[in-house]
Amino acid sequence: MPKIDLNKVPRRQASIYPEPYASQMAGRSWRPLAEAAGLTQFGVNIVHLEPGAPASLRHWHLREDEFAMVLTGELVLVEDDGETVMRSGDCAAWKAGEANAHHFVNRSDTPASFLVVGTSHPDEVATYGDVDMMIHMQGGEPRFTYHDGSTWAGPRDLPTKGDQK
Amino acid sequence: MPKIDLNKVPRRQASIYPEPYASQMAGRSWRPLAEAAGLTQFGVNIVHLEPGAPASLRHWHLREDEFAMVLTGELVLVEDDGETVMRSGDCAAWKAGEANAHHFVNRSDTPASFLVVGTSHPDEVATYGDVDMMIHMQGGEPRFTYHDGSTWAGPRDLPTKGDQK
Repeated sequence: MPKIDLNKVPRRQASIYPEPYASQMAGRSWRPLAEAAGLTQFGVNIVHLEPGAPASLRHWHLREDEFAMVLTGELVLVEDDGETVMRSGDCAAWKAGEANAHHFVNRSDTPASFLVVGTSHPDEVATYGDVDMMIHMQGGEPRFTYHDGSTWAGPRDLPTKGDQK
Repeated sequence: MPKIDLNKVPRRQASIYPEPYASQMAGRSWRPLAEAAGLTQFGVNIVHLEPGAPASLRHWHLREDEFAMVLTGELVLVEDDGETVMRSGDCAAWKAGEANAHHFVNRSDTPASFLVVGTSHPDEVATYGDVDMMIHMQGGEPRFTYHDGSTWAGPRDLPTKGDQK
């Protein structure tokens, strides 16, 4: 039967980010539900955030639509144009290609969780809004560059606003 | 901001099924969240079921992965191999092409709801398990046939097991 036994879906914690960003994801874990059920067209994760933890670096997707619903606790959605407090049942969505970097952060003193859905595109690019880094995913393998496309080789200052393309 | 104002997402009720099946969906309504947010790669609906209402005819998808999470109340998931009672937080998923017809029914005496995600494939086929009908969706337009591919022209008995392909 296709009911998913959530307790049998392994919980993941390891970040694919290079340091120092991987360590900044401490307190985040997730269960990849769709993958566990054999789906391949989109991912569905339940993400758990301990107090203080972010769900990711603030980012936007080039080719993948994304949808999220808060399940438990209180999260802050941080985007280019400001912050929104979100609670159980609140939903948000980001259309592929819209350059509005976003992430959830748990600024409360209790754990929180959300469901997130994203298309599985075989050739995806995400751009981080607060650091000079992009991720290029091809065949499941990540490659990191700066915003200008050159190979990432450690943190550097973001270009100033006027210099950004 | 991409937070979705759920109260501004119009609630839909009209079934695309031909009669007598459209009337059997009484008590079902849904809010198309992803569409309201401009997403095109997958659909996300919150489906509300009054006591007694089914979410759909029992069906399986040829090309679209599907995922569901019960939000409120108690629902019965009916599949080829039996029934499963599901409550808030319970999840299920169906891989495209697996011929396991499924639907949710609210057999309780209070309203219930679930979130459902499905890939948006431009050329989709779904097969109903309890009635001799299939739906072919192309460019958003439905076309109904019998299981043998001939044009649907009203309910008729399902072929007996031995006759099914």
